[in-house]
Amino acid sequence: MKTVTILGSTGSIGRQTLEVVEHLGLSVVALTAYGNAELLEQQARKFKPKTAVLGSQPNGEAAIIDAARNSGADIIVTAIAGEAGLAPTLAALRTGKRVALANKEPLVCAGELVMQTARESGAQIIPIDSEHSAIFQCLAEAHLNQTTKEASETQEKDSPMRSSTPYANTLSLSEARMKQVKRIILTASGGPFRNLSREELCRVTPEQALKHPNWDMGRKITIDSATMMNKGLEVIEAMHLFGVSPDKIEVVIHPESIIHSMVEFADGSTIAQLSNPDMRIPIQYALTYPERLPGLEKPLDLIALGSLTFEKPDLSKFPCLRLAYEAAKKGQAACATLNRANEEAVAMFLEGKITFTEIADVVGAALSEHPGKG
Amino acid sequence: MKTVTILGSTGSIGRQTLEVVEHLGLSVVALTAYGNAELLEQQARKFKPKTAVLGSQPNGEAAIIDAARNSGADIIVTAIAGEAGLAPTLAALRTGKRVALANKEPLVCAGELVMQTARESGAQIIPIDSEHSAIFQCLAEAHLNQTTKEASETQEKDSPMRSSTPYANTLSLSEARMKQVKRIILTASGGPFRNLSREELCRVTPEQALKHPNWDMGRKITIDSATMMNKGLEVIEAMHLFGVSPDKIEVVIHPESIIHSMVEFADGSTIAQLSNPDMRIPIQYALTYPERLPGLEKPLDLIALGSLTFEKPDLSKFPCLRLAYEAAKKGQAACATLNRANEEAVAMFLEGKITFTEIADVVGAALSEHPGKG
Repeated sequence: MKTVTILGSTGSIGRQTLEVVEHLGLSVVALTAYGNAELLEQQARKFKPKTAVLGSQPNGEAAIIDAARNSGADIIVTAIAGEAGLAPTLAALRTGKRVALANKEPLVCAGELVMQTARESGAQIIPIDSEHSAIFQCLAEAHLNQTTKEASETQEKDSPMRSSTPYANTLSLSEARMKQVKRIILTASGGPFRNLSREELCRVTPEQALKHPNWDMGRKITIDSATMMNKGLEVIEAMHLFGVSPDKIEVVIHPESIIHSMVEFADGSTIAQLSNPDMRIPIQYALTYPERLPGLEKPLDLIALGSLTFEKPDLSKFPCLRLAYEAAKKGQAACATLNRANEEAVAMFLEGKITFTEIADVVGAALSEHPGKG
Repeated sequence: MKTVTILGSTGSIGRQTLEVVEHLGLSVVALTAYGNAELLEQQARKFKPKTAVLGSQPNGEAAIIDAARNSGADIIVTAIAGEAGLAPTLAALRTGKRVALANKEPLVCAGELVMQTARESGAQIIPIDSEHSAIFQCLAEAHLNQTTKEASETQEKDSPMRSSTPYANTLSLSEARMKQVKRIILTASGGPFRNLSREELCRVTPEQALKHPNWDMGRKITIDSATMMNKGLEVIEAMHLFGVSPDKIEVVIHPESIIHSMVEFADGSTIAQLSNPDMRIPIQYALTYPERLPGLEKPLDLIALGSLTFEKPDLSKFPCLRLAYEAAKKGQAACATLNRANEEAVAMFLEGKITFTEIADVVGAALSEHPGKG
């Protein structure tokens, strides 16, 4: 039986991970949370981990890192929100085990460091974000091909510790393989306001923005979804995870959130991954991969859905997406600046200090002060 | 440089295969046709095969089988229409080389024999039909997983001659793997008459039926597409190719013909293959697999398409699909009866002897006389 450590077990992804853990009958080694002591205690009584850490206590942050490093779990789920997840994620990666990555910020703010750390330890990153999980699944064939000659070359070069699976630990494809990938197509729901005018967007309240139609998510990511910054951060994540340049990543609005992303290959063929919008599907995939076991979600019914639709994102109404591409091209420091400015701007919006459209203004101002490459 | 033999080079698939062969710069070893001497001569002058065979000549059919067996090509494309393709396909499979299979009838009428022949010789069947190519691509991940332990077991059991690729030659997945596949979802354009009433269907003329909106195809298959018998035959093909029972294969109407088929896995995740409707894409895939090289088709533009739609097939209006499921459950002899009755009925319709809806009546009558398993 596989053992699991969950960093950030009281957040939205953490709670859904525990549902999947229970469904699969896995064993929990450690749970960590920041401030929600009551829920952490409930979880600890139910799942009986060896360790439960509350990060807000004295030395709590060091204890979280220690749980990441020393739990001995087969899989470490990193579901801490925000930049606070960086140090625990790096500690998890240094174990050389599988890291199921739900925390965006480590890749956004320090993607090169994160991928390098995984390569050095041989840790296998499986993304939990539904879009990146979809891309990973769509690239399975390319990885399959890579198993023969190239994979061994890539593995020998990149990873001193071989994994038990026959392909490269990291998701980056070899240069030869990347020639077969024409584009990564990241789908976006477009958020709840995609049909509002620029004027209407100015008047959006935090309450309106927190009602997201498709996914059960936390507050910060719900606002990011409404501004489309979330999709911008995902472009930066995909760039690092799959080793592609941002100009090979295209965002397409797909309001139904059924196709979670696609990969277009050189021959004109596109592979897509679809499911009902339920984070427990990519969470379970990250835990059971390369197996697929029966899941918690009811089957997708395309006939009941009737249609899947696609639109071009309107960058004039959603400038956060444009800003994220700009940061991706400027380099890692610019991406960190983008992310920090966005975290602050979202907090200010939720506190009623700025309007919805001013979120992009704040981020744009911070990014424009950034010198570029570095 | 790979070498190719094309059985049936003057038909629709044969001609498109030669376009791809030219694009890829492959070498042609042998071409065969049945009656179109003029086009065969043109093709032979252009592609300079060692052998060109006209099947309508004395001993022509034996010469086609000889071309399949002795050309020495790396890949044999079997694009002969109808049951006439069975003996050449079996001869091609006995070479142990790759067989790019476009000819439906061998699988429909003698699927068990065809798959057994492939297993014995170690021949690798890559389907050219867009739907089966799509399923093959969607199952890549499952095949990937099979590369580790199970594949070697499956290969040792099934195939004395190992292929150079790391997974099983035949497309059938092991029992353990098939548990991970919940359903195969075959998409169908629904044909040009899916919105006609039963009364309007009675009055459909051959001229109307031969105008198919999405694909460039031959006459027989165009009528089969209009009656949905084509989709029924594809259910039978998929059953044999992928080793699944017909109740795990579902047909969904998708009029845009962009998603060419899907595989739903146990965890609630579905993988789909999409492209513009152009047979040259699956043809090229069958020739270059496991590589993907730049193709002839312009990229898919989902934003320009706007939407993809899905409907339930109406079996009361398109009884041929129901008859095919019935034959699939009855067994191989019933499938052969179904196919033969359909070939005759389509010919009678094209000659103006029966109406469009009487095609299903003729097939149904033939099938009802069939005793079942055998």
